[in-house]
Amino acid sequence: MTTAVAVRYLAARTLETGPAVTAPPGPGEVEIAPAFVGICGTDLHIFHGSMDARVKAPAVLGHEMSGRITQVGAGVTGWRPGDPVTVMPLRWDGDCPACVAGHRHICHHLNFIGIDSPGAMQQRWTVPADTLVRLPDALALDRAALVEPVAVAVHDVGRAAVRDGERVVVVGGGPIGVLIGLVAKSRGADVRLAEISGYRRSVAERLGLSTWNPADDDIAELTDAWTGGAGADVSFEVSGAAGGVTTAVDVLGVRGRLCLVAIHPQPREINLHRFFWRELTLVGARLYERADFEQAVALVAGGTVPAELLISKIVPLAGSAVAFETLERGDVMKILVECV
Amino acid sequence: MTTAVAVRYLAARTLETGPAVTAPPGPGEVEIAPAFVGICGTDLHIFHGSMDARVKAPAVLGHEMSGRITQVGAGVTGWRPGDPVTVMPLRWDGDCPACVAGHRHICHHLNFIGIDSPGAMQQRWTVPADTLVRLPDALALDRAALVEPVAVAVHDVGRAAVRDGERVVVVGGGPIGVLIGLVAKSRGADVRLAEISGYRRSVAERLGLSTWNPADDDIAELTDAWTGGAGADVSFEVSGAAGGVTTAVDVLGVRGRLCLVAIHPQPREINLHRFFWRELTLVGARLYERADFEQAVALVAGGTVPAELLISKIVPLAGSAVAFETLERGDVMKILVECV
Ligand SMILES: [Zn+2]
Ligand SMILES: [Zn+2]
Repeated sequence: MTTAVAVRYLAARTLETGPAVTAPPGPGEVEIAPAFVGICGTDLHIFHGSMDARVKAPAVLGHEMSGRITQVGAGVTGWRPGDPVTVMPLRWDGDCPACVAGHRHICHHLNFIGIDSPGAMQQRWTVPADTLVRLPDALALDRAALVEPVAVAVHDVGRAAVRDGERVVVVGGGPIGVLIGLVAKSRGADVRLAEISGYRRSVAERLGLSTWNPADDDIAELTDAWTGGAGADVSFEVSGAAGGVTTAVDVLGVRGRLCLVAIHPQPREINLHRFFWRELTLVGARLYERADFEQAVALVAGGTVPAELLISKIVPLAGSAVAFETLERGDVMKILVECV
Repeated sequence: MTTAVAVRYLAARTLETGPAVTAPPGPGEVEIAPAFVGICGTDLHIFHGSMDARVKAPAVLGHEMSGRITQVGAGVTGWRPGDPVTVMPLRWDGDCPACVAGHRHICHHLNFIGIDSPGAMQQRWTVPADTLVRLPDALALDRAALVEPVAVAVHDVGRAAVRDGERVVVVGGGPIGVLIGLVAKSRGADVRLAEISGYRRSVAERLGLSTWNPADDDIAELTDAWTGGAGADVSFEVSGAAGGVTTAVDVLGVRGRLCLVAIHPQPREINLHRFFWRELTLVGARLYERADFEQAVALVAGGTVPAELLISKIVPLAGSAVAFETLERGDVMKILVECV
């Protein structure tokens, strides 16, 4: 197939559609035909030119994907053409202090496929076979494209160690916030999602989550009333806003845990006195490990996470620029690019 | 004994010596003759008038103490006059959300004896029998007055879950910082203490701790060199300074834990991106639980914590004001007031 197409990021707000660079997969590699690729907040940052110091243009983006294997390189066992797969898009060096300590997903020299090396927004994509994660045959590939963000949510809920019966406040109701809410709920937690967008609240409600609008009410006061003055057991900061951090601290009861999910490039003012007074914990969460990915596949395949309800729109590969522009206007959840 | 004397805080920088209010201990209470009372940073804050909103003058201060029982109230079993004791100076309501969850030391309505109710700087002191902690007969009472701050350190090291072989940076080398260093070392940790005062560094070195001077070197760079680029496993912020928080974050390696010990009344800017990127944890620590106190008695009695080396000065009860003034001039560790 010599007509495979790729979408490339050239410069801020500029994408180009052209032929994909294809070559037979090398030893230990597989070639995939991506079916659907989700666009996330990081992709949007790149599209805005905010990550030009890291992303070397021209760059093929995309790391939330589903697809089928087309070719298998030498030495690859257990996989064959036609197998439905997703990819855990991480490569590590294996010998830095993080890797040696067993935390390879936060390797000091992590290569994030789709940011630091070519991603999935193309019709043929070659990756190391050990990044593959098997998908059940019965799982529709559009839903399967949500496995990567679900793995993020599984990792976050795991880092916060959410337990049955706990009361959880999620601050920020984009796709990751909603997925955290669903995963926490599947662990038996009682969840409230604080989100300012009416559209996103309506999607969350349709998914069975109770929502609060921070524009209407003080979230800490609502939490206080909800918990009879005890405060929440766990909060997730998924908004990326300074006010979101404050809220995620203020809702917590004694020994509460705040899981920091959003990226805050600048330092934030934190009420450390409350951390001292209530013996709170703040725990950072980044990406995922393989076990998170496998659990995410099970949650999507089993319907615990009804991924189809998060898909706002599906556009063809040639319409990728439109997808980015739709996403930046807001009031959407997940937009998928269909590659076939 | 009608001539018992008490020292009372009247207003900022003003102490008064006068007769203690004595009465036979009520049911469930005991009367103690305090022997030695340590002065801590919180006492100094009160002396400066900074806590007048909370402390109702005239107020007897003092919550780090050792002494002997003089009288036992009705219904108190297991204790008799002459028994050497210290006091865990906490009273809780028993039915707030914190107490119900088993965290009584951070009760929503905690009464801290010596701040919220009369303390130990007097020759006769009545407390509930259930605050008593038994001291071994062989333990000198001046050393035993250090049990309370050692219990703080035990609690802090426990909150940080310091393990054998871990590398620990303690930021701030006052009595609590030094004690945290000693307790962490007793758990098998390799400890570095960052402290700007030459006097305090010399005390720490005499106690067997390796020290760094933040005025001479960048602590994060020293940690990087020390750990071969991995970063520390655990840091303790005991300085109370904004720069101390920054240092305690910057020294940590992947999955590192920062235990927040010092009180920061104002919000502090925190590099949340590093919490995300390295999956760091921040854990607040306040006061202690009974198990911490009992462990502290064992550490002091057994000599693991050579408490005598932390005592800079012992003054008589009538010299309490001098003790406060010496403490505020700095370059001291622990000053004890001798009550007998
Ligand atoms: Zn590595
Ligand atoms: Zn309570």
